Amino acid sequence: MATKLITIAFDVMGSDHGPAEVVRGAAQLSLESPHIHALLVGDRALIDDALAEIKHSGERISVQHASEHIGMDEKPGEALARKPDASVSVAARLVAEGEADALVSAGNTGACVLSCARHFQLLPGVRRAALAAVYPTRDRHGQKADPFSLILDVGATVEATAEDLVTFAVMGAAYARIISRNENPKVALLSNGTEPNKGPRQVVEAHAALSAMRGLQFIGNVEGVDIPKGTADVVVTDGFVGNVCLKMLEGVHDTVVELAQYAYKESLRWRAGLAMLSGGIQRIKDITDWEQYGGAPVLGFDRIFIKAHGRSKARAIANAGKVAAKAVAHDLGKAIQQGLAR
Amino acid sequence: MATKLITIAFDVMGSDHGPAEVVRGAAQLSLESPHIHALLVGDRALIDDALAEIKHSGERISVQHASEHIGMDEKPGEALARKPDASVSVAARLVAEGEADALVSAGNTGACVLSCARHFQLLPGVRRAALAAVYPTRDRHGQKADPFSLILDVGATVEATAEDLVTFAVMGAAYARIISRNENPKVALLSNGTEPNKGPRQVVEAHAALSAMRGLQFIGNVEGVDIPKGTADVVVTDGFVGNVCLKMLEGVHDTVVELAQYAYKESLRWRAGLAMLSGGIQRIKDITDWEQYGGAPVLGFDRIFIKAHGRSKARAIANAGKVAAKAVAHDLGKAIQQGLAR
Repeated sequence: MATKLITIAFDVMGSDHGPAEVVRGAAQLSLESPHIHALLVGDRALIDDALAEIKHSGERISVQHASEHIGMDEKPGEALARKPDASVSVAARLVAEGEADALVSAGNTGACVLSCARHFQLLPGVRRAALAAVYPTRDRHGQKADPFSLILDVGATVEATAEDLVTFAVMGAAYARIISRNENPKVALLSNGTEPNKGPRQVVEAHAALSAMRGLQFIGNVEGVDIPKGTADVVVTDGFVGNVCLKMLEGVHDTVVELAQYAYKESLRWRAGLAMLSGGIQRIKDITDWEQYGGAPVLGFDRIFIKAHGRSKARAIANAGKVAAKAVAHDLGKAIQQGLAR
Repeated sequence: MATKLITIAFDVMGSDHGPAEVVRGAAQLSLESPHIHALLVGDRALIDDALAEIKHSGERISVQHASEHIGMDEKPGEALARKPDASVSVAARLVAEGEADALVSAGNTGACVLSCARHFQLLPGVRRAALAAVYPTRDRHGQKADPFSLILDVGATVEATAEDLVTFAVMGAAYARIISRNENPKVALLSNGTEPNKGPRQVVEAHAALSAMRGLQFIGNVEGVDIPKGTADVVVTDGFVGNVCLKMLEGVHDTVVELAQYAYKESLRWRAGLAMLSGGIQRIKDITDWEQYGGAPVLGFDRIFIKAHGRSKARAIANAGKVAAKAVAHDLGKAIQQGLAR
């Protein structure tokens, strides 16, 4: 692997834990990854204060001031129009202009996707972009035996055509190949039955097209039960269904955590059991905890964007930066185009 | 409550645990519920053998022979055409002809729904039927504080129009009112955001129509995260999305059970903890175990049909019979028509 310096633009503002947490993540990255340069975009005073308090490698961090930012609850379209100097816009523009190689943000997802759409170009052959999400599964995947699968789209393209679904399949496979070092990822369509004729028309049509495609390990339809199991490495669906599924996993996770906390508080007998069982509970939590992993890519643009969860702590931010750098180093955009050409 | 005798036709064949298990459920019912008569439809010799081995009230059980049955893995349309004397068809016909008041089956879901469609009439104003499912939630619902919600459609109508979704909302509310004794159930549309303009067009249109409807507590859109939480008493979506969600809950349940078993086997330390924590684990399992509840209604026909899970044991079969009798006693069909008239 060549270790060409890769610059990642971090949108420092607008995450749940505030700018200092994102800065801490970039600082960790600067110490751990000599081939990554972090360009921190946001309120310069806040960033400098945060940097002053934490160990970092000064030569691998720079700052670009942006006077505004988009809040988590703001409406993306309106907010971006009202705030031309919002950190996510400035960061996306820097990436588009080649000042940085990829964008990472833990802010308002809608504003991120919209900023990408405005500043980046769709790859040739891609009609609609997809937001993908990594989620934990029972089964392990790829060379690194990652305990997670990829699901897309989870909200960028609410209604997808058969052609869009095929494109999502190719893009998801390219991403899994690069990020999970999974040479031949198993790709599946999400449907209400495994038979090729199951599902709405666009799913049936996409099934036929994917079955005929070379260079892609299409395993057919999977059902809801296969999502937590991890039957496929890449699960393809439209943004409506994907969003509902991803948020369901989040809801199940919250419920499990809540019950564990309830058990902890309520009963001494339980408490003793809980301490002994911490390994087991942790595994159950891992299965349902979709936020512990690096980040979620927006796929289909000529530039790389990784969306970190709003609740990301420094470790998750650093991981998102590493994932972004890996996608750049392996030229994800080119891999997608090659896949579409097949 | 009047205790008029209600006859429930049980399709005895084709469940995962075999005819004897269904007969055992009906036998329990005959001892517990003096107002219910069980009409057992299937292979008479098998039924008689099973009855001979179990305590039951002979005067509240009768048998109707049917020489064929549909297997779990058979294609519903083909199998029903090939087997005119299949138990589910015979049972549905007996209900249509007034020989019984409602149908209960733990067999092939597709064959059940198709038999209903062939032998029953859609209620006036109902364009498409819906298969509803009861699933466990964190929050409790209704007067009986039931720890479950209703979701529909889960597979009968894969692509639903706005009008279908509105009908499903009314039918689900009527069912919750009767079965969960929930006078004013909270009804929600499943979408990818809570705002009224979120989701595909049919969801946005249904949102507008339901907002304008009187006599229904429409709480707007809910998201995937609200499914396990139980924010709504009745979650409305199309059969494609509902099927994926229901099966996802099943997959999460299987994973939790598997991890608990793994923990139990793998480690003495864990084993001690597990025993102490059994109450907590049981609660986690309850939240994700969608099969412990009575059954799932097909809504929209002039006759009552309750689908018990294929894996139902005798207790679940008896419960499904009670639910069916309750729907008959409270005239679910009339309640749905009154709801649609508003």
